[in-house]
Amino acid sequence: MMSEQWLGAIRWNADGLIPVVAQDSSTGKVLMLAWMNREALAATVKEGKAIYWSRSRQKLWRKGETSGHEQIVKDMRLDCDNDTLLLTVEQKGGIACHTGRERCFYQQLAHSQWATVEPVLKDPDEIYGKKQT
Amino acid sequence: MMSEQWLGAIRWNADGLIPVVAQDSSTGKVLMLAWMNREALAATVKEGKAIYWSRSRQKLWRKGETSGHEQIVKDMRLDCDNDTLLLTVEQKGGIACHTGRERCFYQQLAHSQWATVEPVLKDPDEIYGKKQT
Repeated sequence: MMSEQWLGAIRWNADGLIPVVAQDSSTGKVLMLAWMNREALAATVKEGKAIYWSRSRQKLWRKGETSGHEQIVKDMRLDCDNDTLLLTVEQKGGIACHTGRERCFYQQLAHSQWATVEPVLKDPDEIYGKKQT
Repeated sequence: MMSEQWLGAIRWNADGLIPVVAQDSSTGKVLMLAWMNREALAATVKEGKAIYWSRSRQKLWRKGETSGHEQIVKDMRLDCDNDTLLLTVEQKGGIACHTGRERCFYQQLAHSQWATVEPVLKDPDEIYGKKQT
């Protein structure tokens, strides 16, 4: 079917997944890397919001469903090998990481150590409803 | 050993690899995604230039060795799950992609099709020495 040809172009890995890089549309920062299967990618495009495949939970992961930190998709790119996606997103709440940080890449290599160099913007217990706000 | 503790923190996948996102330090553009094994990552840090693991050729891939399009590492980040790296790089020659484009993410989803939206800056035959220049 015409509407699914673009999905057929994807080179899924042995697990039927493709790595997806999410970049913030306003700051240009790389927020996170997650994975999608065919169902997640189709749903992402249909709904215009990032929906990943959780490898740990083995189910669709509607980013922001609990936290409210949804990612509105502004642009979607496929690389030269058809095996990686790049999403440009509007990051709701300005927090992409489950640790309450702006993004997941907060550990910087310096002097042969990983140093945490970005602050927690919001307590995860508060984000995920374990604490009264 | 002290100097290798940072390598021990990495959560390699079943193939002993970690996905690596390369972002241009001057433009902020996401250039490509490639993979590193332990040897590639150690060499990258030692030499200050991106050295990947080629999954297709099953050998170290010294980015830019043939093309001259090296990536000088300015910053290295590890994500919250310790299973993805983000490199900020100075992209020599302004071309990261083997197709002669600035970057690998040149196919944009529009109207249910992947459209090529970024130009070839240099003929690959010229880059890889198959044509006299």
